[in-house]
Amino acid sequence: MTLKLYFSPGACSFVPHALLETTGEPFEPVLVKLHKNEQQSPEYKAVNPRGQVPVLVADGQVITQIVAIVGWLHERFPRHGFLPAEPLARAKVMETLAWMNNTVHPTFTHVFMPFKFTDQPEAQAAIKAYNTGLYRPMLGEIEALAQAAAGRGQAWLGGAQFGPLDAYALTLLRWGGFAGIDPTGFPALWAHVQKVAQLPAVARVIERERLQLNVYKAG
Amino acid sequence: MTLKLYFSPGACSFVPHALLETTGEPFEPVLVKLHKNEQQSPEYKAVNPRGQVPVLVADGQVITQIVAIVGWLHERFPRHGFLPAEPLARAKVMETLAWMNNTVHPTFTHVFMPFKFTDQPEAQAAIKAYNTGLYRPMLGEIEALAQAAAGRGQAWLGGAQFGPLDAYALTLLRWGGFAGIDPTGFPALWAHVQKVAQLPAVARVIERERLQLNVYKAG
Ligand SMILES: N[C@@H](CCC(=O)N[C@@H](CS)C(=O)NCC(=O)O)C(=O)O
Ligand SMILES: N[C@@H](CCC(=O)N[C@@H](CS)C(=O)NCC(=O)O)C(=O)O
Repeated sequence: MTLKLYFSPGACSFVPHALLETTGEPFEPVLVKLHKNEQQSPEYKAVNPRGQVPVLVADGQVITQIVAIVGWLHERFPRHGFLPAEPLARAKVMETLAWMNNTVHPTFTHVFMPFKFTDQPEAQAAIKAYNTGLYRPMLGEIEALAQAAAGRGQAWLGGAQFGPLDAYALTLLRWGGFAGIDPTGFPALWAHVQKVAQLPAVARVIERERLQLNVYKAG
Repeated sequence: MTLKLYFSPGACSFVPHALLETTGEPFEPVLVKLHKNEQQSPEYKAVNPRGQVPVLVADGQVITQIVAIVGWLHERFPRHGFLPAEPLARAKVMETLAWMNNTVHPTFTHVFMPFKFTDQPEAQAAIKAYNTGLYRPMLGEIEALAQAAAGRGQAWLGGAQFGPLDAYALTLLRWGGFAGIDPTGFPALWAHVQKVAQLPAVARVIERERLQLNVYKAG
């Protein structure tokens, strides 16, 4: 099987990137420069007409959307237990994954790219400010998840094995730094994210994407 | 097994509502009046702290998020083939389901409830107008999916059996009417949605929710 992953450094593609690296399976990482708008090139749009990362190409078959890629990786590499085996536990992890993907992540998009939601500069400023206010308590919800997992002696957010919630939590907390939110203000989550970053496979992805974990600048 | 579904008429909860009714399994439908803000009551927040429908309660276990509920229903009621059995086909349906859920649905939320994204009235008006413009081509993408399925002689958007994409397509096209978008302008999709509405189980849900399929008013 040939596997190719289109990713952009620090983007949400970090989630499948970290999972794929964890499998140990050989794959081709293809860097897409979002700041150069490469995702809008005709070549890229031929792969993903919606012009976004991540894209997984498995034996020539294109799969987009984090939720779909994660489900596929879980089934293709069952040994890694990216999602829990038990149906209700799996539904609860999918619930949190869906929420991160359809609520927390888009809230950050409002902060980072408000021009996606209006072409009027003043409205963009209003959207940015308001959504920064929404983002902080969402990170607080993930902090509560990290506290609860730690309290149960559970190693990873989704259960006994590293999975998509851990990789997404790292991404979302890191993004908070760009929104002026200090990650160390969420102690359980920050500790968890540092632990995630030290997994050998995750550390390789962080190196490949050249990421700094804490991008927050005070003042 | 006891099953309870919290829904609101015409809301996105229509998706699990239609699937659950299709199973033939007895369940308790619980109506939540969003226009009376019942989703913010302490009683409701004890069930779903995020104050949204849908919520499925299975033997006392709460599952939120359409994507998670759909996955659970698919596995619990395999006979109905809500998702394709083959992994790649299933990933492709999950891709479209995730996109409807994290992109099309939230775009409509910007049109219908712009106050969720800013507290400034002028910015709200700007968001509403801009996202109405984004919503129409998204319905165009679903029209293309309906055309492609029809062209392949495929009965339902996700494959050979009725599933979440069909129920979500109905919901999203119906919402278009509230945004001033004429559903009949998407002929393949409109024909498909009318076919979905005639499935006996879906017809019962439409009756229970007292829905009118075409809410568009010209002029
Ligand atoms: N719903 C998509 C979201 C993908 C997404 O938001 N990708 C961003 C990076 S985090 C992107 O490619 N943005 C480029 C752009 O919008 O131009 C998923 O789950 O895969
Ligand atoms: N991401 C959620 C979205 C749920 C959602 O948007 N629910 C809306 C109705 S369509 C709601 O309950 N809105 C009430 C409110 O926001 O106050 C899911 O997939 O279940």
